[in-house]
Amino acid sequence: MHIDVRLLPLPPDPVLLSTQSVVVIDVLRATSVIIHALSQGAIEIIPVETVEEAFQRSRTYPEGTTLLGGEKNTQRIEAFDFGNSPREYGADRVKGKRIIMTTTNGTQAFHAVSSGRMIMAGSFYNLGAVAERCLDLNLDLLIFPSGDEGNFSLEDNVCGGMLIDRMVKKQKKLTLSDAAQSAYILYQRFRDDLVEAFRLSRHGRKLIRLGLGEDLPYCAQTEITRIVPQFQNGVIKDSLSTGRP
Amino acid sequence: MHIDVRLLPLPPDPVLLSTQSVVVIDVLRATSVIIHALSQGAIEIIPVETVEEAFQRSRTYPEGTTLLGGEKNTQRIEAFDFGNSPREYGADRVKGKRIIMTTTNGTQAFHAVSSGRMIMAGSFYNLGAVAERCLDLNLDLLIFPSGDEGNFSLEDNVCGGMLIDRMVKKQKKLTLSDAAQSAYILYQRFRDDLVEAFRLSRHGRKLIRLGLGEDLPYCAQTEITRIVPQFQNGVIKDSLSTGRP
Repeated sequence: MHIDVRLLPLPPDPVLLSTQSVVVIDVLRATSVIIHALSQGAIEIIPVETVEEAFQRSRTYPEGTTLLGGEKNTQRIEAFDFGNSPREYGADRVKGKRIIMTTTNGTQAFHAVSSGRMIMAGSFYNLGAVAERCLDLNLDLLIFPSGDEGNFSLEDNVCGGMLIDRMVKKQKKLTLSDAAQSAYILYQRFRDDLVEAFRLSRHGRKLIRLGLGEDLPYCAQTEITRIVPQFQNGVIKDSLSTGRP
Repeated sequence: MHIDVRLLPLPPDPVLLSTQSVVVIDVLRATSVIIHALSQGAIEIIPVETVEEAFQRSRTYPEGTTLLGGEKNTQRIEAFDFGNSPREYGADRVKGKRIIMTTTNGTQAFHAVSSGRMIMAGSFYNLGAVAERCLDLNLDLLIFPSGDEGNFSLEDNVCGGMLIDRMVKKQKKLTLSDAAQSAYILYQRFRDDLVEAFRLSRHGRKLIRLGLGEDLPYCAQTEITRIVPQFQNGVIKDSLSTGRP
């Protein structure tokens, strides 16, 4: 099995992608929100690209079933139910609900890799379970950090490196691209203090400036759930509930 | 001063580039060859994109003044004077000569960044001098690893990280993008054994397979020359001989 990391959030070759499993990572904060919300009982997440699309889609579902979440320019969106902090998505508010979500980087990333054979969401919360799933699938793996407004994001690559670490520990016959080697080394640098990577990263510093610093340790919790969200036909669900693989 | 690293060898935005200094890095082996050849007395290097272009250009110069060097698929090119190993470019062969050069990644990279305000060539050989020059120029800096057939190259990023290390040691007021932080961390990982980075990299492994493993320690020599090659109007010369800083 070969592991590669897409260092810039550019759409990969769809033909190659159709043979690969893909793990989308946006630790700060979209995939952390998605995994947390599903673990708290949300039934599904629908990632959309714009605020307008979020409102339009919500009107197609029965009243009371659907909530809106996300951010624009890292800020809450007016008339949305949630911002983009996983701390907001507790069971009391999300259980049994569908959430339509739009964010700057993370929700776009799922659409960029939609040709993937199996598309999952990863964050520090669920990497142990994601590592096992990737090994079970036994497909070449593309790790897809969502980036920071089109640029490389340190924190997502550290998380991708932790996924590689978990896989390498269970399976010795993996080959790593230079980009995967790089992510693995970045993880080793920050393994004892993931929040330090957040504090060094451009996006982490922005969250601190905006008074959202509490999200950093909250997003740095590791392996707190076995949920492996899967993106399929435009919807993200816990993969155990989709009937695949 | 802000420092960024272009992790994939894609042409950057030319308008932004025109305000930046740029350091092109292809440690294995194009910029190592360029720096070595100039330090041995070659008068200039002309990077061209194809073998055909190399032959055409050579016919425009007086006989006996111009040599051909480079590689295609990491192999020597028939009827060329040199391959792409810096070991071949000794003073006995290059002194006073012009070298027309074509390689898979490195020579293309100069053309990809040709809008840059000041374009330099870096390798482990000259990073101390390049660091000083970049600080003197006092422009925002884009480090441009040439990559490996369009992909991220570990060894060039380790070298970019060493350039950052040399700059940070002399000047505290630098800001680093997430990509620059990443290159800096990669350098720290391999600082005591640069050849180890080569051996982990896809391109380094390919050189070993092709029997060119001796080039790895040869390209890992650090700070052996003060030459800072500059690319300007299609030609690479020692910047001291171009009449520009």
